Amino acid sequence: MSFTEITPTAAIENARHGGRAKCLQRLIRLDMPVPRTVALSFDAVHGISAGDMPDLGAMLALFGPDPLVSVRPSSEDPDWGGPGAILNIGMNDAVHSKLTKTHGEKAANALYLRFIQSYAVHVGRLDPDEFEAFSTSSPDALHAALALYEEETESYFPQDPKEQLAEILRSMARAWEGTTARLLRQAKGAPADAGLGLVVQKMALGVGQSTCGSGVIQFVNGQTGYREIRGRYLCKSQGRDALSDAEDRDVMYLTKDPRGRSIEEVLPENFSNLLKYGDLCRTRLREEMEIEFTIDNEELFILDAVRVQRSERANVRIAVSLANDGIISREEAVLRIPPRALSELLHSQFDPKDKRDRFAKGIAASPGAATGKIVFNARAAQAMAAQGENCVLVRSETSPEDIRGMHAAKGILTVRGGITSHAAVIARGLGLPCVVGAQDLSLDRKQRKLIAGDGREFAEGDVISIDGALGVAYAGAVNMLPPELGEGFQTLMAWVDEFRDIGVRANADTPPDAHNARMFAAEGIGLCRTEHMFIDDDRLLAMREMIFADHAEDRRAALDRLLPMQRADFTELFEIMQGLPVCIRLFDPPLHEFLPHGREGLRELAEALDLHLRDVERRVDGLREFNPMLGMRGVRLGITVPEIYDMQARAIFEATVEASKSGDPVVPEIMIPLVSAKREVEMVKARVDAVAAEVRIETGSDFTYRLGVMVETPRAALRAGEIAQHAAFMSFGTNDLTQMTYGLSRDDAGRFMGEYVAQGVYEEDPFHMLDADGVGELLKMGATRGRDANHDLTLSICGEHGGNPESIRFCRDAGFDYVSCSPFRVPIARLAAAHLALEGRVRDHGLED
Amino acid sequence: MSFTEITPTAAIENARHGGRAKCLQRLIRLDMPVPRTVALSFDAVHGISAGDMPDLGAMLALFGPDPLVSVRPSSEDPDWGGPGAILNIGMNDAVHSKLTKTHGEKAANALYLRFIQSYAVHVGRLDPDEFEAFSTSSPDALHAALALYEEETESYFPQDPKEQLAEILRSMARAWEGTTARLLRQAKGAPADAGLGLVVQKMALGVGQSTCGSGVIQFVNGQTGYREIRGRYLCKSQGRDALSDAEDRDVMYLTKDPRGRSIEEVLPENFSNLLKYGDLCRTRLREEMEIEFTIDNEELFILDAVRVQRSERANVRIAVSLANDGIISREEAVLRIPPRALSELLHSQFDPKDKRDRFAKGIAASPGAATGKIVFNARAAQAMAAQGENCVLVRSETSPEDIRGMHAAKGILTVRGGITSHAAVIARGLGLPCVVGAQDLSLDRKQRKLIAGDGREFAEGDVISIDGALGVAYAGAVNMLPPELGEGFQTLMAWVDEFRDIGVRANADTPPDAHNARMFAAEGIGLCRTEHMFIDDDRLLAMREMIFADHAEDRRAALDRLLPMQRADFTELFEIMQGLPVCIRLFDPPLHEFLPHGREGLRELAEALDLHLRDVERRVDGLREFNPMLGMRGVRLGITVPEIYDMQARAIFEATVEASKSGDPVVPEIMIPLVSAKREVEMVKARVDAVAAEVRIETGSDFTYRLGVMVETPRAALRAGEIAQHAAFMSFGTNDLTQMTYGLSRDDAGRFMGEYVAQGVYEEDPFHMLDADGVGELLKMGATRGRDANHDLTLSICGEHGGNPESIRFCRDAGFDYVSCSPFRVPIARLAAAHLALEGRVRDHGLED
Repeated sequence: MSFTEITPTAAIENARHGGRAKCLQRLIRLDMPVPRTVALSFDAVHGISAGDMPDLGAMLALFGPDPLVSVRPSSEDPDWGGPGAILNIGMNDAVHSKLTKTHGEKAANALYLRFIQSYAVHVGRLDPDEFEAFSTSSPDALHAALALYEEETESYFPQDPKEQLAEILRSMARAWEGTTARLLRQAKGAPADAGLGLVVQKMALGVGQSTCGSGVIQFVNGQTGYREIRGRYLCKSQGRDALSDAEDRDVMYLTKDPRGRSIEEVLPENFSNLLKYGDLCRTRLREEMEIEFTIDNEELFILDAVRVQRSERANVRIAVSLANDGIISREEAVLRIPPRALSELLHSQFDPKDKRDRFAKGIAASPGAATGKIVFNARAAQAMAAQGENCVLVRSETSPEDIRGMHAAKGILTVRGGITSHAAVIARGLGLPCVVGAQDLSLDRKQRKLIAGDGREFAEGDVISIDGALGVAYAGAVNMLPPELGEGFQTLMAWVDEFRDIGVRANADTPPDAHNARMFAAEGIGLCRTEHMFIDDDRLLAMREMIFADHAEDRRAALDRLLPMQRADFTELFEIMQGLPVCIRLFDPPLHEFLPHGREGLRELAEALDLHLRDVERRVDGLREFNPMLGMRGVRLGITVPEIYDMQARAIFEATVEASKSGDPVVPEIMIPLVSAKREVEMVKARVDAVAAEVRIETGSDFTYRLGVMVETPRAALRAGEIAQHAAFMSFGTNDLTQMTYGLSRDDAGRFMGEYVAQGVYEEDPFHMLDADGVGELLKMGATRGRDANHDLTLSICGEHGGNPESIRFCRDAGFDYVSCSPFRVPIARLAAAHLALEGRVRDHGLED
Repeated sequence: MSFTEITPTAAIENARHGGRAKCLQRLIRLDMPVPRTVALSFDAVHGISAGDMPDLGAMLALFGPDPLVSVRPSSEDPDWGGPGAILNIGMNDAVHSKLTKTHGEKAANALYLRFIQSYAVHVGRLDPDEFEAFSTSSPDALHAALALYEEETESYFPQDPKEQLAEILRSMARAWEGTTARLLRQAKGAPADAGLGLVVQKMALGVGQSTCGSGVIQFVNGQTGYREIRGRYLCKSQGRDALSDAEDRDVMYLTKDPRGRSIEEVLPENFSNLLKYGDLCRTRLREEMEIEFTIDNEELFILDAVRVQRSERANVRIAVSLANDGIISREEAVLRIPPRALSELLHSQFDPKDKRDRFAKGIAASPGAATGKIVFNARAAQAMAAQGENCVLVRSETSPEDIRGMHAAKGILTVRGGITSHAAVIARGLGLPCVVGAQDLSLDRKQRKLIAGDGREFAEGDVISIDGALGVAYAGAVNMLPPELGEGFQTLMAWVDEFRDIGVRANADTPPDAHNARMFAAEGIGLCRTEHMFIDDDRLLAMREMIFADHAEDRRAALDRLLPMQRADFTELFEIMQGLPVCIRLFDPPLHEFLPHGREGLRELAEALDLHLRDVERRVDGLREFNPMLGMRGVRLGITVPEIYDMQARAIFEATVEASKSGDPVVPEIMIPLVSAKREVEMVKARVDAVAAEVRIETGSDFTYRLGVMVETPRAALRAGEIAQHAAFMSFGTNDLTQMTYGLSRDDAGRFMGEYVAQGVYEEDPFHMLDADGVGELLKMGATRGRDANHDLTLSICGEHGGNPESIRFCRDAGFDYVSCSPFRVPIARLAAAHLALEGRVRDHGLED
């Protein structure tokens, strides 16, 4: 049988007939008044495009004499699109005459004209503008439309309903298989062989007495997720006409309304049935549905029902509400929220309705929206913030010196850099909107101007807006919607934590970061970078003195001035984290990052250090590196200038003693960066242990700590077996590991990564999506070798990939203990982790009944 | 038995009694007149230091009544050192009286005084200066020495020979086990538990009638390796006294000499016996030995024989001569030459006797010696060379722009950079002496001065000398010895090639390189870098136009100007290599390397390209990279700017057709650099294949070529399985692979590598010695995965490690087809490969009889 009438017991399947056919069967099972409907399977439709037409005579006979029918698409996923519905198939001169008698000429004309228009445009492929010009239901319009059709096609308008239906089915089947439609649906995730089903339904005309018409109704607000009756009803209309904005139509309100008639008042029985059907959908289909209906002479017909379109915040509230009402399980509520969708809730967003004037496109580096005045340097950002003004920091690229300015700004826009550039990483940590690598922009430093690709110029103080989720910058201000962390979100996240089975920590460097980490219920800090602690004005000079010192004692003296400040930093972090683990990465960047650039800065430094300018220049020049990424940093610095790590270890241990006095005992974790050989770990460990022993004696307090390594070099992964013998934990820094595995600097990759991904050289930007084949193999190798050597080894990932659902799956499969990511990605990571744990445990996904 | 008399049948073993004891047994077996000798094994000596003294009465009884004996060290390898010999043990007042009667008072005094001196210094640990001041053999000196001994030790000089011997043995045993001696011998490769044997030999006094005395004789010139009798004989002397330079001694010449008496004339029988014994050593011990002998009243005693000390060039000539005379096999001749020792033959060297005035120490980057006038830039070097003057190019660091200057210079000295910096790599390729990273130097660019760490200043034109094998720079000129590639060398290398079973190619970029490759019998070019082909003045401008072009057509037009030059480059290379394989690496470096630095250069460029300075600055700035090593280069450039590879492929194919007309057909190999994903290979291959098809049609000639990849990123090694499906060969670029595996830039590693190796963080500099554990695992993984996917895959290594014996072993074990290295390392690589093939096949190593 090449078509199937949809009855409660017919064999209708989502995967064979599409979602619409399946949904209609469900409505029928729930005894809703659905007009008789026939489903054509994917195979049948594919057969039609290949010339194999079903027995349409037999099909039409099901609908009674002279039936009018509609055809609608029914793909497996409604998002994949499909041809538009065609109504009133079967209209011809004879039916027109008959309807003129039963419903009046105007109604008959309207139905016939509408069909001719659809047929001419969708089957005959004639000019829509010409046919849609016939807008009245006058006899002249109908005749003119028929004449135009005949002139353009050199044939009469088909009068045989079988022929009409056959042409329509063939046209829809072929359109689905065309290249444009295929590319469009593949872009939405459809597989290459996605099928199209069709449903043929008897028309409920909706063109009878004055209240006849059609409408849509939903019982929830798609923006907010709160329960509320919404919809439109238009008299003398069909299909989804009610949703069009035409002013001259004959509207009826759904609920009582001072502005005019309402179904609730005029057709109370129909109204109460609509409410009943809505409730049935919610409780039995377990979803908020929008119902499409027709009322024909006070008889209600349910034509279709689709899932209510909704914002992500509404989606959360609806899922929580369904679970709270016992309609779905909590597991299913959790599974209904795509992890990445949470991003919309966590950040402010531009009002989608507001107008925008885009002047630059870059890389979407940190989500959220910001509007503010342009500032070109960190100092200006701080000054602006001090006056209570919002500003957007615009830089060629950012460096550690800009950190305070970044804190002060509402958003960041850079001309250079990629998804893991300094600006991007810091912005994500701060939850600040950030657009990087907007390469069509240029900065005129002398004139203090930002020049757009189209020649427009922006001066300091001009207002711009950036959308970090889209990677776009707009001229002027744009209205904003605030983030949404309401009750629904909190309830959902509490359930999430019941289900997930892999830990989630936050990368947090500063007290604000740590507060964010706690706000998003991170289970500790997985990566605390300590570099920023050397940047503040008063610290920077001590740091520079240390760099310029010739002897270990002088270095130590300079570092001694930093010790109390570092200790205070750590104490504050430990107090905020209240006994949760805090993993501190020892000093990592190359020393030259702490030296000034430019002649003026060098001169000031010479003055401050009481040295000749030439000596300063020579020293600065001597520290310059060809490839700083691969140079003297991390543990290499820790071993060559051991006083730095000594000071940091002391600060950590003294802070541990201090913080443990007032709260839960703290167990700090100390992480050694950029390890490539086990001896590096042994040597640092020996010194750190010695410092711990000293502090224990000096303070008379005992404490424990864990020492581990950051695995960032391929060699550390390869040699994990011997390295793990000296480490309590290994945390994979997938940023650097990706850079080294590919031989690809994250900061320089921007120049060709776009093209590389577009051409399919790399399937994905490996800094965005963990490269499971290459970098992933090193991760697995490192994890296996490490655990084999040390069964108690804690394994984690702390790179930018840590918050990606795909990476979390990878880490969970590889037996990792936790992932660590920017605070603002923590909820996404928690939700993704819960999804993984629930995978397979819960089959039930809403409409799948 | 804790001591063993050395007889022909005694159980004396090198590994238990040391080399000297074993050699003495061989001399005894050859019926040479060796005085009675006793050997103490390693265990026995170790026992002595622990207090377990052998029965010295029994031992001394072997030597007859009132014997005088000597004790000499006998370690397993003579290079490991040991305590100095002590002679005349047994001297006391009684023997002194007896000898006064038989040999006269002077002789008796001399013997006794000598013994007192030795004993006081080595056993009593008294001040050598005080005791060695007693230089005459007067009775007063003797008594004064005895008195001093008694005063210093507060005891009489021991009279009991057993006590004397016991103290001496104990002193020697303990000295061997002291820390200083242990560290010294470990530095020479001795294992931690290396043992010391001792030999106790009856003295042949050499203090009788006027011709009595002692001497050494050898039958070969240790500098040249040519056969020639050399040595010294001193009347009334003992031990190796003859070798001291004292003027007042009573010398006899060995052979007839107009200057005085000779053994050949005065003691002809002794002389002919010496010749006989020398010949016996050569034919039966299969080595050129230096014989230590004493003639006592015309009776010849052979006290000892040691391998003649020799230069590496002499070593080659001796081995070849022994093999040519049928004394040793060719295999053994080959095995007797340590591969690295060939370096001395291949480069000129400073005369070791000449004085030097060192002013700087850096890293030994390319061996050889050079003297010349200082020049500070490439242009000056070319100008100086044009005038026929030798010059040394002194730079802070070199860049591709300096190449022509490097060609013109006799040597290169840089302040910055490591063992694999640009200067070092290029210099090794050219066979130029090079010292890099001489960090105590500084350059004053404005004053055009080089300032040494000690404050000395050198101006342009001042003469300096550099030793690239030692990494040292000297003020002024030093006499030079030329390289030695004579008949001995050529014969040996011919044998080498019979034995080895892994290929050796050369890295060669230019025609001079290629000539060197052929001179050293490389089996082809394993790595031809093409960057230099874009540097020459006329090419650089076209290259820069290409970089600044906005459209593919403009790029192509600029590249079209380079095409004929590249084609000529390749044609010349192919013609020099005469049908041997030439593996050409497609363009690799980042484009910014081809742009000028500094304002003046930018201005000139703007002029040449007819652009505004600001546009040029902006473009140059836009191409700047944070980590050029990990940036837009190699295949990334090839895919983003495909016109470059198109042009290069065309030049290669057209040159192939051209060169094949006049000689053997050429099969070029095209290598894609910096691959990290298989799609990169597929895409380049598609374009290269297309160019080949075009050239075939245009020229009407057929040709074949092979396309492969350079494995430089860890990811390429990990994904070798899929990459090899599209590649005919994989060549491991271990420089870059090491950099990425360690996350360590070769150019920046210099700053801490010294300290890292000194502290044992890394056992070796991984750029110097292939890291078998980490990088090596990636090599093996890549090789295995590649071969599994493609059984015909050719595997090779072409990094700086290619010429290292350790790397060659690694590659041979991993089943590689060939190694490729600098032309000047090709002979070393060939020899090392032969050693590996012979390993196990030949047990016979010279003295091992």
